[in-house]
Amino acid sequence: MTTREIDLYVEVANALADTVRCVVRPWFRRGIAVESKGDESPVTVADRSAERVMRALLAERLPYHGVFGEEFGQENPEAPYQWLLDPVDGTRAFVTGRPSFGTLIALFHEGRPLLGVLDQPILEERWLGVSGRETVFSSSLGGRIGTRAVSLGEAEMSCTSPEMLEAAPHDGWKTLKSRARRMTWGGDCYAYGLLALGQIDLIAECDMKPWDWGALVPIVQGAGGVMTRWDGSALRMEGDGTVLAAASPALHAAACEALCSGQ
Amino acid sequence: MTTREIDLYVEVANALADTVRCVVRPWFRRGIAVESKGDESPVTVADRSAERVMRALLAERLPYHGVFGEEFGQENPEAPYQWLLDPVDGTRAFVTGRPSFGTLIALFHEGRPLLGVLDQPILEERWLGVSGRETVFSSSLGGRIGTRAVSLGEAEMSCTSPEMLEAAPHDGWKTLKSRARRMTWGGDCYAYGLLALGQIDLIAECDMKPWDWGALVPIVQGAGGVMTRWDGSALRMEGDGTVLAAASPALHAAACEALCSGQ
Repeated sequence: MTTREIDLYVEVANALADTVRCVVRPWFRRGIAVESKGDESPVTVADRSAERVMRALLAERLPYHGVFGEEFGQENPEAPYQWLLDPVDGTRAFVTGRPSFGTLIALFHEGRPLLGVLDQPILEERWLGVSGRETVFSSSLGGRIGTRAVSLGEAEMSCTSPEMLEAAPHDGWKTLKSRARRMTWGGDCYAYGLLALGQIDLIAECDMKPWDWGALVPIVQGAGGVMTRWDGSALRMEGDGTVLAAASPALHAAACEALCSGQ
Repeated sequence: MTTREIDLYVEVANALADTVRCVVRPWFRRGIAVESKGDESPVTVADRSAERVMRALLAERLPYHGVFGEEFGQENPEAPYQWLLDPVDGTRAFVTGRPSFGTLIALFHEGRPLLGVLDQPILEERWLGVSGRETVFSSSLGGRIGTRAVSLGEAEMSCTSPEMLEAAPHDGWKTLKSRARRMTWGGDCYAYGLLALGQIDLIAECDMKPWDWGALVPIVQGAGGVMTRWDGSALRMEGDGTVLAAASPALHAAACEALCSGQ
């Protein structure tokens, strides 16, 4: 593919994320007013509306591309380019009024993540990663792209919830946690953005789907990090659901060793 | 005390929080640049600078009041009015670049919390509670003061970290969690602010000091909630470190029952 093609996809991805901000924001911190009128929670309406809007824009701009989203299934499943959409990653964060959920937009080419957007619609923060390019970050809250160079013993580790780990054997995960400096809970996709800013160094999660990690791979790699499965192999559409993000190749190697030690 | 006195304390509390924003913000998401130069992490400098600044303002405005902060000890310990200062509650959130830490400013009168400010310096969100008054909230991110009326089975529950619970026997806590609708991890003081907005319904934590909970009591109560120890007794300077915040008296009673069942 040419630079011009990629620039077009970047433009479209930014346009999708811009529009999702407008769609999602009115549903944030709406309380239960909507739920009490019917069966629909605000997060459900926000999620579905945003996916519809992104599909409408993609149909207009890139009609031959494939699209996959949780709510409305797959379009053009045979196309080499596939957009994976997750308008509200971090449903619990959204529901509890925390501005740490994120909109994830990934473009895969022949099964590999090519481009990713992580957008926080309420704080108007955006990470944009493209395979082989440096990640771009825009926010008024501060922070600069670039992972940290730290040893495992110095590493800030993060994980969304202890419940997530119950989905897989995790003795190796416990070993990793015991070797890292410190643990912080919560975060969803936002934690990967913080890793790209050098604020977090290590994330090991499981029960993850391609639309959960696809956008994050170019973002983490374009900031100097490494992102694979727990066993160190490349993330692909079909996988075991494990995800490991590390601030550097050396930290990644030490983390893989710890994760495999207990399994 | 008169309304005029209380209004003065509110004015001073707002002035403290305004100033802390200016002091803390430059240290947020600074990465390790500072740490590599010496022993001081950005959060340590932010914390200590903010406490110094608040003490300076209090010495000017209310010199006969007592002041207590972690870094610089106690002044005027015999005074009936005591300010408890915690410039950065949620050190791990700060360190990892999450704008969910908070500045806590509490004014106790004869051992009871009279006034509390929870301020998020980066997002510029502020909750201000005064005993007997409705809590005031200001933010550009949305949300309105008022807890929800929900049963225990419908309740959104929150807790900062599983590690925190290791400080106390918590079979009752596990019972409570199993009866609530859903659990979210992370949050520190910010979760209590979200409870006051009706986004979270239940928080049960332990290992809490008076400067961790003092400011939050008037904020939660002034939004319709209840805040006590796990056994339902009032929070006082001397205590067992347990804190329970619930959206309503009925939910509080159900939560106390669950918490006591396993102990």
